[in-house]
Amino acid sequence: MTYDLVVLGAGPGGFDAAVAAAGHGLKVALVEKGFLGGTCLNRGCIPTKLWLGATSAIDELHNQARMKVASGEVKVDFPALQGRVAKHLAGTRKAMAMQLGKLGVELVEGFGRLAGEGAVEVETTDGIKTPDGVRTLKCANIVIATGSRPIFFPGLEPDGKCVLDSDMFLAMETMPASLIVVGAGFIGLEMAQVAHRFGARVTVIDAMDRVAPLEDPEISKALQSTFKRWKWDVLLEKRVSGVRTVDDQGELTMDTGEKYTADIILVAVGRGPVTDGLGLDSVGIKTPMRRIEVDEHLRAAPGIHAVGDVNGIIQLAHAASHQGHYVAALVAGKTDAPYDSGPVPSVLYGAPEVMRVGRMENEVHLADEECEVSLAQLAANPMAQAHAATQGFVKVIWAKGRVAGVTAVGHDVSRLTTPATMIVRQGWTAHDLHSIVFPHPSLDESLLAALQAERIPVE
Amino acid sequence: MTYDLVVLGAGPGGFDAAVAAAGHGLKVALVEKGFLGGTCLNRGCIPTKLWLGATSAIDELHNQARMKVASGEVKVDFPALQGRVAKHLAGTRKAMAMQLGKLGVELVEGFGRLAGEGAVEVETTDGIKTPDGVRTLKCANIVIATGSRPIFFPGLEPDGKCVLDSDMFLAMETMPASLIVVGAGFIGLEMAQVAHRFGARVTVIDAMDRVAPLEDPEISKALQSTFKRWKWDVLLEKRVSGVRTVDDQGELTMDTGEKYTADIILVAVGRGPVTDGLGLDSVGIKTPMRRIEVDEHLRAAPGIHAVGDVNGIIQLAHAASHQGHYVAALVAGKTDAPYDSGPVPSVLYGAPEVMRVGRMENEVHLADEECEVSLAQLAANPMAQAHAATQGFVKVIWAKGRVAGVTAVGHDVSRLTTPATMIVRQGWTAHDLHSIVFPHPSLDESLLAALQAERIPVE
Repeated sequence: MTYDLVVLGAGPGGFDAAVAAAGHGLKVALVEKGFLGGTCLNRGCIPTKLWLGATSAIDELHNQARMKVASGEVKVDFPALQGRVAKHLAGTRKAMAMQLGKLGVELVEGFGRLAGEGAVEVETTDGIKTPDGVRTLKCANIVIATGSRPIFFPGLEPDGKCVLDSDMFLAMETMPASLIVVGAGFIGLEMAQVAHRFGARVTVIDAMDRVAPLEDPEISKALQSTFKRWKWDVLLEKRVSGVRTVDDQGELTMDTGEKYTADIILVAVGRGPVTDGLGLDSVGIKTPMRRIEVDEHLRAAPGIHAVGDVNGIIQLAHAASHQGHYVAALVAGKTDAPYDSGPVPSVLYGAPEVMRVGRMENEVHLADEECEVSLAQLAANPMAQAHAATQGFVKVIWAKGRVAGVTAVGHDVSRLTTPATMIVRQGWTAHDLHSIVFPHPSLDESLLAALQAERIPVE
Repeated sequence: MTYDLVVLGAGPGGFDAAVAAAGHGLKVALVEKGFLGGTCLNRGCIPTKLWLGATSAIDELHNQARMKVASGEVKVDFPALQGRVAKHLAGTRKAMAMQLGKLGVELVEGFGRLAGEGAVEVETTDGIKTPDGVRTLKCANIVIATGSRPIFFPGLEPDGKCVLDSDMFLAMETMPASLIVVGAGFIGLEMAQVAHRFGARVTVIDAMDRVAPLEDPEISKALQSTFKRWKWDVLLEKRVSGVRTVDDQGELTMDTGEKYTADIILVAVGRGPVTDGLGLDSVGIKTPMRRIEVDEHLRAAPGIHAVGDVNGIIQLAHAASHQGHYVAALVAGKTDAPYDSGPVPSVLYGAPEVMRVGRMENEVHLADEECEVSLAQLAANPMAQAHAATQGFVKVIWAKGRVAGVTAVGHDVSRLTTPATMIVRQGWTAHDLHSIVFPHPSLDESLLAALQAERIPVE
């Protein structure tokens, strides 16, 4: 049998590509060496959100207590929470497997690699063994969606004892009383927030001069101000030379020789594409920058596409899914247009939250397009007031009179993400602001307020 | 001096009309007999949201406790909360007054009424007295934005002791241990939710056969299922013949003679337009249905417009604001198009929440437009799972292949309101679903899932 499509990797990009392709009537095999759902479901976004959700009462109580409106205590049972996470993930994987079955997608469990044009070899782990344990899938098209894994600089490798990567951190059985996070990106900051809610003393270290360095500098500043209020130690422009476990404690050494210790050190300095052993050479795909380069159709070689983290375009689950849907349509002959994601939003969950979509102030400025910025403070919003969480703002970036980007920090601002993505995608002008009625009261009105606020030219 | 515009009433409709008109360069006077902000700010949406926000930790804790993930207790100090509400309202009113001052809108405190064409008489309360206490404002245009007040059927009038209307309920000094709510609309249900969080025994009574009778029947059913789990008594298709205070208890009598008692009875059976004493006769405006009828330009008579609850189009603060902005533009000569609100969303806050925008299943069905319905359960959404609040669904109504309406019930579904309003406004087809990237994970994806779900024709 020849498959229309073989997909390597069942994370958001690969799974959605397989499901969408089957929906288009293609005969599809999905190869996965680990769990359905990939990093996002099993070792990333989802467990972290379950942690944040389970502890949100702690944050809400804290805010109201600061206003002397509420008192009391919320205790979250971490082992019970981990049990619930495990159950949720297993349930989700089961639902995904059922969906594949219903659509006639064949799930091949094992490690897949390209074996020349039109063939994928799988070292199977699902019991369907050939004499040499390898099964060959003939196919017209291949989608590589093998994702990413944590990367480490020399000396920063996790040891699985007191020095952990994010995978290990999510698998912990107890929450540490003290935590050092190396790397102040979204992954580290979400995990640090959870530890904070469990009462941990938190230290965040980054080599850059601000936390969340991919964001607008004012966003970083707002986050830092919150972390300061929480009495976190935020150490910036610091270089770490080594981390190790000494006497059941994590010990971190700066390049200055300074040492810090904590129960757990989480190293979250970034993630890199997974391309090892994929047999890319067999089809002439090179990975000079470790990632699989793709063209405007997300094609890496004739009949071979790469979606998600592995192509290095953007490391976000929803970007991978969107690419997966596109490639499925492309392979099925439903489209031949180049890939166009539109603006891809990113979100930091927790409290405060951060959202960003489209182009930021410094980017549009560089492009010299008559840029303006308008801004609204969350303090003026009644929903932020209701949750006693009034720090933060919404910022709109305009280019040539059109909304080019939106970013926000503060209570529940993730809810601005989808409307802001639509507004940026559609390039709203001032005339569009009253084209829809925003509900009142709502945090969404802070977006409207920012859109309506006085625009300041970017110099 | 002749004003370009005199506005009667400083609620959302009137205030926004005044501010927008001043923004267009008009000379504006704003007449208000009570507080800036009207019902919404002072006796409606805003205090209720502050109550819901302050008690949200109770609900979050309860959900996690049910999963045995969390334990503890959250106590909300009701007098302290009321103090915070008062402070917030005063602060907001002050900010509004400053905004008026900055824009040069003259605030005239007192009761205003029409005095023939181009004139408003104000019984002033702000110390700017004429010999007879009446000041006449000459003007080219008038906007009537006098809002609404609670209405009562005979025998259901509040006595201010144990039988309260929503205004009185919001002014309480203690939260009752038991509460009967007469009227299962959004106002009564939000207030009942707050009382429930404070531990009150709740009874809800309505003459209709379901709660939230303006919503999709499946939404009502979902709410009733939650209320049942909370051990509320929900009495439907029941007629109340009287309410009164007896021995410091509220006593309610059904038309069957059956009696119910509680610490407080809240009567929330509806609101009606405020038109008494406005001098409408002096300009020939009739109010046969109590409301001020307006044409497609929201005009009630030459040079006189009516916005918000008083025109009876829709009783929602954001509808009033939107109308206010429109009339300001109209009076300023910036538009002459008929008023077009697009779909106006409505939201029940709390947990669960309800949102609705556009046309509902029964409405589109009646119009016979090849209607279909697609639906996604919240249980499949990781954010609902994270908050252990998985009851609920998102429903999309399609007419002739375009999204005509969206409604949802469950955890945090208010956040779907703005994107859904945009989607309904823009009449999305299946082709538009991938035009934007939804963030993952997010509750917003439940809207995407509903949009993508199998469509069932409405028979």
